[in-house]
Amino acid sequence: MEALDYHAKERRKAEFDVEEMKIVWAGSRQAYEISDRVARLVASDPVFRKDNRTMLSRKDLFKDTLRKAAHAWKRIIELRLSGLFFSCGMFIPAIKGQGNEEQQQKWLPMAYKMQIIGCYAQTELGHGSNVQGLETTATFDPETDEFVIHSPTLTSSKWWPGGLGKVSTHALVYARLITDGQDHGVHGFIVQLRSLDDHLPLPGITVGDIGMKFGSGAYNSMDNGVLRFDHVRIPRDQMLMGVSQVTREGKFMQSDVPRQLVYGTMVYVRQKIVADASSALSRAVCIATRYSVVRRQFGSHNGGPETQVIDYKTQQSRLFPLLASAYAFRFVGEWLKWLYTDVTQRLQASDFSTLPEVHACTAGLKSVTTSATADAIEECRKLCGGHGYLSSSGLPELFAVYVPACTYEGDNVVLLLQVARFLMKTVSQLGSGKKPVGTIAYMGRSEHLLQCRCEVERAEDWLKPNVILEAFEARAARMSVICAKNLNNFPNQEEGFAQLATDLAEAAVAHVQLIIVSKFIEKLQQDIPGKGVKRQLEILFNVYALSLLHKHLGDFVASGCITPKQGALANEQLRLLYSQVRPNAIALVDAFNYTDHYLGSVLGRYDGNVYPKLYEEAWKDPLNETVVPDGYHEYIRPILKQHIRVARL
Amino acid sequence: MEALDYHAKERRKAEFDVEEMKIVWAGSRQAYEISDRVARLVASDPVFRKDNRTMLSRKDLFKDTLRKAAHAWKRIIELRLSGLFFSCGMFIPAIKGQGNEEQQQKWLPMAYKMQIIGCYAQTELGHGSNVQGLETTATFDPETDEFVIHSPTLTSSKWWPGGLGKVSTHALVYARLITDGQDHGVHGFIVQLRSLDDHLPLPGITVGDIGMKFGSGAYNSMDNGVLRFDHVRIPRDQMLMGVSQVTREGKFMQSDVPRQLVYGTMVYVRQKIVADASSALSRAVCIATRYSVVRRQFGSHNGGPETQVIDYKTQQSRLFPLLASAYAFRFVGEWLKWLYTDVTQRLQASDFSTLPEVHACTAGLKSVTTSATADAIEECRKLCGGHGYLSSSGLPELFAVYVPACTYEGDNVVLLLQVARFLMKTVSQLGSGKKPVGTIAYMGRSEHLLQCRCEVERAEDWLKPNVILEAFEARAARMSVICAKNLNNFPNQEEGFAQLATDLAEAAVAHVQLIIVSKFIEKLQQDIPGKGVKRQLEILFNVYALSLLHKHLGDFVASGCITPKQGALANEQLRLLYSQVRPNAIALVDAFNYTDHYLGSVLGRYDGNVYPKLYEEAWKDPLNETVVPDGYHEYIRPILKQHIRVARL
Repeated sequence: MEALDYHAKERRKAEFDVEEMKIVWAGSRQAYEISDRVARLVASDPVFRKDNRTMLSRKDLFKDTLRKAAHAWKRIIELRLSGLFFSCGMFIPAIKGQGNEEQQQKWLPMAYKMQIIGCYAQTELGHGSNVQGLETTATFDPETDEFVIHSPTLTSSKWWPGGLGKVSTHALVYARLITDGQDHGVHGFIVQLRSLDDHLPLPGITVGDIGMKFGSGAYNSMDNGVLRFDHVRIPRDQMLMGVSQVTREGKFMQSDVPRQLVYGTMVYVRQKIVADASSALSRAVCIATRYSVVRRQFGSHNGGPETQVIDYKTQQSRLFPLLASAYAFRFVGEWLKWLYTDVTQRLQASDFSTLPEVHACTAGLKSVTTSATADAIEECRKLCGGHGYLSSSGLPELFAVYVPACTYEGDNVVLLLQVARFLMKTVSQLGSGKKPVGTIAYMGRSEHLLQCRCEVERAEDWLKPNVILEAFEARAARMSVICAKNLNNFPNQEEGFAQLATDLAEAAVAHVQLIIVSKFIEKLQQDIPGKGVKRQLEILFNVYALSLLHKHLGDFVASGCITPKQGALANEQLRLLYSQVRPNAIALVDAFNYTDHYLGSVLGRYDGNVYPKLYEEAWKDPLNETVVPDGYHEYIRPILKQHIRVARL
Repeated sequence: MEALDYHAKERRKAEFDVEEMKIVWAGSRQAYEISDRVARLVASDPVFRKDNRTMLSRKDLFKDTLRKAAHAWKRIIELRLSGLFFSCGMFIPAIKGQGNEEQQQKWLPMAYKMQIIGCYAQTELGHGSNVQGLETTATFDPETDEFVIHSPTLTSSKWWPGGLGKVSTHALVYARLITDGQDHGVHGFIVQLRSLDDHLPLPGITVGDIGMKFGSGAYNSMDNGVLRFDHVRIPRDQMLMGVSQVTREGKFMQSDVPRQLVYGTMVYVRQKIVADASSALSRAVCIATRYSVVRRQFGSHNGGPETQVIDYKTQQSRLFPLLASAYAFRFVGEWLKWLYTDVTQRLQASDFSTLPEVHACTAGLKSVTTSATADAIEECRKLCGGHGYLSSSGLPELFAVYVPACTYEGDNVVLLLQVARFLMKTVSQLGSGKKPVGTIAYMGRSEHLLQCRCEVERAEDWLKPNVILEAFEARAARMSVICAKNLNNFPNQEEGFAQLATDLAEAAVAHVQLIIVSKFIEKLQQDIPGKGVKRQLEILFNVYALSLLHKHLGDFVASGCITPKQGALANEQLRLLYSQVRPNAIALVDAFNYTDHYLGSVLGRYDGNVYPKLYEEAWKDPLNETVVPDGYHEYIRPILKQHIRVARL
């Protein structure tokens, strides 16, 4: 018997080789095969079942997560894979990056084998983005050769670290180093929190969970924690001494290891976040696209079926730019992986020349891709109409899990302002002969970009990558230059920067969008095999760029980069492009190669068999265990029987 | 002892009389006093405690809601107030609007007294926006004088009605009326679902809850339901016969009651939705504003305190337009109340002349205010940084509760297209001598609006209401006229409408934003007492209008309504306005007069005592009942002790 597939007809419409596109999406054939194998392994293992997550109480949800993590760890050992669970993911990199040789040799093997479980305790109740404002103290006591870790105020309580509340045995604690009454700023310290015998907190340690977070399921499966220290003593060698040291006598020393080395870790973390953005976005887009094909509404003629909602231009103009963004973010993420390798090699060769540019570019990409993805997940939910509001659509939980990415590892607005500082510095140095490199190289042509005119005369002119690239370059350059000019009107530069912060952030967005556009073009210039694959990517590129242009039309027209007429032509071309995406939409999301288990969405099912499954899911809710609800006798019946005045509630 | 108030200093900065503003916000002194009394009554009643909602399991949450509802009903009877609970709120209005005299006399008293509990069962699993596509059938059986209600397919299952799953005893079911094999379209039928003795479903009825929805708490306290009929028989007089009838012989008859009468209910429901939008938005803004004053980050000089985040221009440019929107939506909602009265009077006098305009205006306002509010709540959450992600911030649940408003009572995009149809019709009739009235009257001056030039030369010119009004009118008129022109390029108007749907929706938004702007201006022209109150409202009006102008700069500049230079001046003026809002920000949200109970947010506390309370809340989480978490022995210990390979998981 042939398997049920409501999407089969849609799949036959595809004008390209989906198997080849899967490899393009994964990055390589090998990456595709590994991810495919792991996904199927997880999907087929009943322990990893997740469809009941949103119905569990907090305690049951947490216990279920512990069980899955333990099972995963067991399977990893059995299959001789590598991987790490429980740990928040920053404990080990930080020891690697900031510990000295001995410290790495002592702590890393224990962490890898999970003889200890570590978390990364930086953020405090009163201090997030501003790390230098942390209040926790680590005071050196030369008499005992120890540091005394202490939380002097309520706002100095560590707050948010993942895995801290219930699981971790150790924490990497960031605290102000104080020797001989002098404050040397914030440094990292390894502090044991719980006994390895009975898991009880050690003396002086108060530790717990910070409570419920957004959504049901979502991050409530994690024990983000609160931690206070009451004069907790640790040996001197538990301060991470790779970069700075405190001697036996209590003397503070900076090593000659360049501080820039930490940038390597930062680039690594941010490329991971951008890759995660494309994963989350593509999941949401996959669900919304598949359901938009199943859902029909209005437009029935002579009793025939109604119109598939994906055929409405309003649906296409909201959905297809997000589909294109998923691919765009994927490719810029791929490029960031290369950038990480490049930076690592340069750092090893003590070449710090590209660091400012790399810092600005990764900060900007983190900010723009995570903000766009958070908005896009919610938009995909709305594109599924009312049913997107059901937990079984998978979208509410995807949103709730994703949104913290806009805040963690650098608040998105704070990061844009860092990019803007770099842009202003670049503009101010333009006359100096210092040539901008990498993603900011276009500023070297700012003289041209400030006066160039867009050549578009007909809608199809907007299909040319060079035309698009120049428009985006001109927009970014002009917005930066205008900001720089306006800054000069302020006697005090810092005051000017504060006053113009919103404009500066907008200029930063223009710069980052240009980076994404240009990396997409570079991808298209590569050799891409497979029938029709390259053509599809070209269409997606045009959709991505022209939908951005439409969204930010004010930037482009007000800065004179394009005329209103050219803006209207771009819009016209965009409509034609949507029609070209339409027959390929299902195949383009199939190329993500997500299992139904991974998607976790009834609306996004591969086979499109949505309604019977939605109906089936509903009956699993605990409220349906009884036909008459718990509480009927106490609260409903007295009302119906008009006995409410005398009822005991 | 003086009460703790961290906001006291901020409150002293206010340049206007907050008590007077409270009355402006409430609409009248009387409205203020009533809402104030009710709010304090609810806040002081321990039964209405809600801070534990997000931690409850689905069943406990639902039972707790039943308890609160029963208690509220009891209090209403005790205090001789009027009100209704349980019922989804549409059951009674529908019987009033579509039932005949006898039906109203029979059913309404039972519903008011809650001897029966009714829900409104329209939406089906496969059919939402398109009511005419419903599949449930009501077939008249002349032999028994009954209707046979039946669900012929899975997709015809009723799905979503609030209160249906577990509570309702009756439903107003919308079904296709069939007499003698002929389909007369969708009509309403009163169907009893459950026995009034034991609450068990009657024969032929399958009813249950549709499962978990977005968020923890939120709408999970409600039993949105699924309902199937297997040839359920009801007496003929349970078809609502106010507008159409079926005779004893099975003859279908349309009454001569004008169909337009249903518009009255529609205007009522939509004005309620707009009022709810301003409530939800103002709640979110109140929380974000109060916390932005408490939160400090960066900018510490010489060991002094860090900068309050509300002092950052990036924070102001995101927050203050939302604060201004809350007021703008409030005033347009107030005007809609008047419109409802006006429409009701006209309908009674059989004057249907304003109906198309009223329909377009209410549809558009529902769409624009709910979409803006949903986005704004999430923006307010982000404006609270990481802590906005905690349930105790109140913002996740506010978001989860609010977002369905974008879908129910008309999907927001579908509604915009209805507005656009009205706009296109208006444009096409411009030459005909038929004069546009009410909110579309400006189109009568389209000749002027298509060629007028904005007179702004300096930033302060943007403070003039007339300048702003003309810019918004010109933008709306030009966007409509351009759409109408482009439509004419299509040989088939319907095909053109489908192809240009996105542009048409944008033109509709421009029209609706103009309505909100013009109603704000009308408010400012009223006599507003109280020191400095009017001045504050003028500032908020300017913030609202100019921030919209900045957001939609592309519309204004591309259509030639303003020059790029004028756009830059508007932006400059906006910055100055933010500085004027800043000292009044706390007082402007105090004017909403929300109790801490109603806000349900630690971050939004009136006294600003945020951090100690966040800390206190955390410990209430069930996970903190034990120091060592449930699951430690089974899942964590075996890993730490390196026994995982032999552990039973």
